[in-house]
Amino acid sequence: MSKIDSIVTRTYRIPLPVALSDSTHGDMTHFELVCVQVRDNDGCEGLGYTYTVGAGGLAVHTLVDRYLQPMLIGQDPTRIEALWQQMWWALHYGGRGGQTVLAISAVDIALWDLAGKRAKMPLWQLLGGFDPRVPCYAGGIDLQFPLPQLLEQADGFRQAGFRAIKMKVGRDHLREDVERVQAMREHLGADFPLMADANMRWSVDQAIRAARALSEFGLVWLEEPTIPDDVAGHARIVEQTGHPIAAGENLHTLYEFKQLIAAGGVTFPEPDVSNCGGVSVFMKVCRLAEAFNLPVTSHGVHDLTVGLLAAAPNRSYLEAHGFGLDRFLQEPMPIIDGNAVASNRPGHGVDLLWDRLAEHSI
Amino acid sequence: MSKIDSIVTRTYRIPLPVALSDSTHGDMTHFELVCVQVRDNDGCEGLGYTYTVGAGGLAVHTLVDRYLQPMLIGQDPTRIEALWQQMWWALHYGGRGGQTVLAISAVDIALWDLAGKRAKMPLWQLLGGFDPRVPCYAGGIDLQFPLPQLLEQADGFRQAGFRAIKMKVGRDHLREDVERVQAMREHLGADFPLMADANMRWSVDQAIRAARALSEFGLVWLEEPTIPDDVAGHARIVEQTGHPIAAGENLHTLYEFKQLIAAGGVTFPEPDVSNCGGVSVFMKVCRLAEAFNLPVTSHGVHDLTVGLLAAAPNRSYLEAHGFGLDRFLQEPMPIIDGNAVASNRPGHGVDLLWDRLAEHSI
Repeated sequence: MSKIDSIVTRTYRIPLPVALSDSTHGDMTHFELVCVQVRDNDGCEGLGYTYTVGAGGLAVHTLVDRYLQPMLIGQDPTRIEALWQQMWWALHYGGRGGQTVLAISAVDIALWDLAGKRAKMPLWQLLGGFDPRVPCYAGGIDLQFPLPQLLEQADGFRQAGFRAIKMKVGRDHLREDVERVQAMREHLGADFPLMADANMRWSVDQAIRAARALSEFGLVWLEEPTIPDDVAGHARIVEQTGHPIAAGENLHTLYEFKQLIAAGGVTFPEPDVSNCGGVSVFMKVCRLAEAFNLPVTSHGVHDLTVGLLAAAPNRSYLEAHGFGLDRFLQEPMPIIDGNAVASNRPGHGVDLLWDRLAEHSI
Repeated sequence: MSKIDSIVTRTYRIPLPVALSDSTHGDMTHFELVCVQVRDNDGCEGLGYTYTVGAGGLAVHTLVDRYLQPMLIGQDPTRIEALWQQMWWALHYGGRGGQTVLAISAVDIALWDLAGKRAKMPLWQLLGGFDPRVPCYAGGIDLQFPLPQLLEQADGFRQAGFRAIKMKVGRDHLREDVERVQAMREHLGADFPLMADANMRWSVDQAIRAARALSEFGLVWLEEPTIPDDVAGHARIVEQTGHPIAAGENLHTLYEFKQLIAAGGVTFPEPDVSNCGGVSVFMKVCRLAEAFNLPVTSHGVHDLTVGLLAAAPNRSYLEAHGFGLDRFLQEPMPIIDGNAVASNRPGHGVDLLWDRLAEHSI
């Protein structure tokens, strides 16, 4: 039997090259990155990580280092589902969401990476293998960008190979959102895939009004129109506007996705592998969406996620997230003609440049 | 304007006098206690605390100490609702449940204690004042007690003044649960209020079978029949059995209570002030239950909770929880003829014996 020999956790506070802003989190200048390395007794090693928008990361670190790590050492790393259940129940009281799930996510990702490396298979094939090329959009975090900067950013995205772009909405007046979306639509052309993200800014009725006002611009989806806790509200937005709705970056369990999906509250479920419970839960959400005949998109950590959507026949767009890790990666994810391409190296194929991260250690 | 001058967090790992067990958490030998003291610039001090069944407490400590404390210093402690929103949104990404809510709960409890002390009013009156005497049951954590020990424990509870008792169910075979409940019913007499708690052990169908098998024993309620994530399952249990169901100790937001209550999935909502978001959310859950014509009960930290249920006209029983703090309290909560009595001292009236706690510090 293979055994887990060591689990090492490292946490970083990383400055963003440019301060980013959305309607909920205000100006973001840093993000936190919590990395977990799981090594087995054959010397094989898996890497997982999760992140925050600036707060809570040290609690995730504590959960992995003080509670999960002692429990997992000596166990068989190939029984991922069994270990997932152990982690879930060990932290269930006081857990069932929040930092617990970020901690489990990081460990689970590392275990799947390890599984791929042991099998000498890239993760996208280990998980079923659909298509390594995944349509990818650039996620702008640009609510406060003046209009010229917004359009300039779009040009940069296109030059970088993107063929789909998401912008933020949720400014103080709906009129401003309409003007900015209209300007982007005119700038990009009628057929260019454009999404908009409200980051939970609106009440249900404000969201309905906004979806109607924006409907003429043919958005692929409107994202997080209201708080994720309001399942009935999401269903009302979908029902009353007929506008495609994406949601899920703040849902932390398979059950939360089931509730929102079964209620008819979402068109594009959007799990984040680093906060929904890891690869194990991300793939279950993909399959759940497939069963409901829904496309699935993603949030965050695109370098890890590309290999997961590459295994899902119902994948729509991968988000290339604004908190990019490119400068800390050995091989950043390629974008070719609008597609991201899953790595063909064993596991998820992501290797961090630890030396470069070191100065941001906390 | 009053200002928050300091917030001090202390965490303890406290051995239980007897190892306790339920159907989900196995044998529990310790619990973790995270204490928060908020002091204002007039030297007035409020105390809050939360706990875990043994894991995760240090992450709660980190959240208060590293993220909430720096944000709250210098702010007006009397604007509790505003501070609550700030805490919620500061940790929303990666939060929305889990350790984040335990951290917010501890701070919120301290702020309400401070408010009571500033106003020189006991919390139960500050919150509206219904009746300081609250019917109270003894919560046995006794799934693995042999039958004689179970009955002996019940005698001890009665001698201590309790006039209602809860026992654990969820053993390997339903037959065992039936035998144990029957024995307790015969021991206590036909009219003695008796509850049973399955700690999420069952599938929905197992729960339905159990509720039917136990219905002849006239339980006040059957608690946590299945996982808290299964709202539709709870509704099916209530609908198909007609048995009163208690649930809520693992729900961490007002919205989760709303979903379960609005779905008809619970008869006795059962928030825990130390993990649902503090006094602010606990009272909202009480009022929500009242609006749905439901009684409200409680979980955990009874010394704090008695003053909250004393302000709720729809209160049913207060749980006297098995993780008692009596040996660390200046004045343990009195039980008189089956009623707990809310303190008439300003705030919640709970003072910890710090010297006695010190040896358990982690």
